[in-house]
Amino acid sequence: MNNNENNSVGRVKTHSYTFAQSPDYLQLESGEKISPVTLAYETYGSLNSNGNNAILVTHALSGDAHVAGYFKKSDKKPGWWDFMVGPGKPLDTDKYYVVCSNVIGGCKGSTGPTSINPATGKPYNLSFPVVTIGDMVKAQKSLVDFLGIKKLLTIIGGSMGGMQALDWTIKYPDMVASAIPMATSSRLSAQGIAFDEVGRQAIFADANWQKGNYNDTNKIPAQGLAVARMLAHITYLSEESMHEKFGRTLVEKERYGFDFSMDFQVESYLRYQGESFIKRFDANTYLYITKAINYYDLAREHGSLKNAFKNVQAKFLVISFSSDWLFPTSQSREIVRALQINRKNVSFCEIPSRYGHDAFLLRNNDMEKMVADFISFVYEKAEK
Amino acid sequence: MNNNENNSVGRVKTHSYTFAQSPDYLQLESGEKISPVTLAYETYGSLNSNGNNAILVTHALSGDAHVAGYFKKSDKKPGWWDFMVGPGKPLDTDKYYVVCSNVIGGCKGSTGPTSINPATGKPYNLSFPVVTIGDMVKAQKSLVDFLGIKKLLTIIGGSMGGMQALDWTIKYPDMVASAIPMATSSRLSAQGIAFDEVGRQAIFADANWQKGNYNDTNKIPAQGLAVARMLAHITYLSEESMHEKFGRTLVEKERYGFDFSMDFQVESYLRYQGESFIKRFDANTYLYITKAINYYDLAREHGSLKNAFKNVQAKFLVISFSSDWLFPTSQSREIVRALQINRKNVSFCEIPSRYGHDAFLLRNNDMEKMVADFISFVYEKAEK
Repeated sequence: MNNNENNSVGRVKTHSYTFAQSPDYLQLESGEKISPVTLAYETYGSLNSNGNNAILVTHALSGDAHVAGYFKKSDKKPGWWDFMVGPGKPLDTDKYYVVCSNVIGGCKGSTGPTSINPATGKPYNLSFPVVTIGDMVKAQKSLVDFLGIKKLLTIIGGSMGGMQALDWTIKYPDMVASAIPMATSSRLSAQGIAFDEVGRQAIFADANWQKGNYNDTNKIPAQGLAVARMLAHITYLSEESMHEKFGRTLVEKERYGFDFSMDFQVESYLRYQGESFIKRFDANTYLYITKAINYYDLAREHGSLKNAFKNVQAKFLVISFSSDWLFPTSQSREIVRALQINRKNVSFCEIPSRYGHDAFLLRNNDMEKMVADFISFVYEKAEK
Repeated sequence: MNNNENNSVGRVKTHSYTFAQSPDYLQLESGEKISPVTLAYETYGSLNSNGNNAILVTHALSGDAHVAGYFKKSDKKPGWWDFMVGPGKPLDTDKYYVVCSNVIGGCKGSTGPTSINPATGKPYNLSFPVVTIGDMVKAQKSLVDFLGIKKLLTIIGGSMGGMQALDWTIKYPDMVASAIPMATSSRLSAQGIAFDEVGRQAIFADANWQKGNYNDTNKIPAQGLAVARMLAHITYLSEESMHEKFGRTLVEKERYGFDFSMDFQVESYLRYQGESFIKRFDANTYLYITKAINYYDLAREHGSLKNAFKNVQAKFLVISFSSDWLFPTSQSREIVRALQINRKNVSFCEIPSRYGHDAFLLRNNDMEKMVADFISFVYEKAEK
């Protein structure tokens, strides 16, 4: 742990906000309703008296509200985007009030398939309604209101977090001064849907999944979820970075084992990724979150992508990464073009990177500087 | 069925050749031995009196010896490369004697994990030794000798078939006049190994796999194998072809189902691919064949790729496909460069195609003409 470093937000806590208590409810895009709804969130820095310095960070598939800092001294790692959030960092907690919200459908303290269904007293499991990115954003809007934020200075997120960022600017145009969608898309490709579907099938294929009712037993579909994660992990890296990191190097052996244990380092790495994921994520949740990502399609929802952005008011900084083949630059360009056709204020940068989709989670001077400058610029304009 | 068409090889049969009968055996690269060894094969056309018109076709992961023609009138489909093999086709059976051999380790009539181990009277399952591409080629050499072929006019194959083609030219340089390795590599990338490893893990994760002993029960690891196949299938297509073929089109529904049945056509297509594969392929065999592909590494085996090709005598036509990201053009170029450094006779073409790795299995004028002309050229030279 290194939480005495000058630019760490230090010790933090995850909070909970519960709303839509019966008889109130959250109306979902599917037509279903849920009640109550809890969102896990963290905040760093302070909201200023103008209420115009708030930044909402939205997370990707397996993320959570713990974006920065440490829970306790013994933590080996800080939050998932610690290099971006803290005093003097791009999301400068000396200047801004940074909020990170978990999503509904998740398993990190927010209402999702692992939550207790108040109607039955048991976990929802697959009786939890299928939620959308729009539903996640709608729930976040309640949290943002509750926190007293009148207008978000910026909403920033990568991958599924970028989808949420886009949706915020469309659903609540007067609530968002600027948005930084990173490594994202207005709709996932057929190939992306295909990979997610194989991941879901891997979970379904695990006998321990038991049609989603594994929470009633003491078995979990660990192998199925691990396979889904291993597969997804390949799509988060670039061929180039896998080549550089592993190549065809063998695990500590001189020659092939001529068996099915393990030969290559890349196999060992993937198995580790699978094994560590099952300790921190839930299989049903994986089904729900991938489905939300697959359903996201601004053109379908609004008739066209151009139409989707018709009423947005936010300034945009769209960022893609050159070696990202899951959310390729071409998909960011589609977003940029649709914004430009609508004569919106949009900057775009494809950052050269060898790290594939995961690049947005890794330190990168270009990215950090661009984000810092963009937010400063928007903030100074807002202050005037 | 259309087996009366003029240029079909018509009705065919798969034959078996068994050798290495006890006390003889086939020595494998792992150090293990197997005995006896059976290879399934088909032949079309006739060997000429000079014995110099034989073409060996080598197949990919899930292929078999049935490369052309029909077994019976009711067959819905001909062999897997029927458009390439027949009278007047690129592998012209009026001129050439075409042989297609299944591989050891396979489940299509050749000795593999589904075969009976003569020592126990039961299927080998995982007690079958791990075989390599070199072992497959060594077994094929026995078949080629048995058929009375003195020298192969050409050896041609795509993907794993291309690996066999390369290996033939190296292991038996004076037996091969020319080789056409297509959509292949001298060693699979880290990313390719990673995808195969996830496929194997999906099989291991299926409770019906039972450590490979499912043949003793009446359950097979169908779901695990289907997941492996679905995943592999994505890597055989290009993002572009998936976009064109499926895009985000829904299965016959107007709106999302908000459940985990099926929404997108690409999901339906993949599930169909998985379901049809489990009817025609064996899960343990999938483990063995992917392992053989992963192990193939000419540079590791020979010190360097340059060294691997030092003594080859064959003329080469190396073919890659522009949208193949599993065996990308860069890997074909590596082969070409290593051959050129050795001052070998090599032609190379990257064929523009939108169909990804599977392109070599699909009709393509450029490919057909190039292969036909190359073989004619080599044959005319040999006749002189």
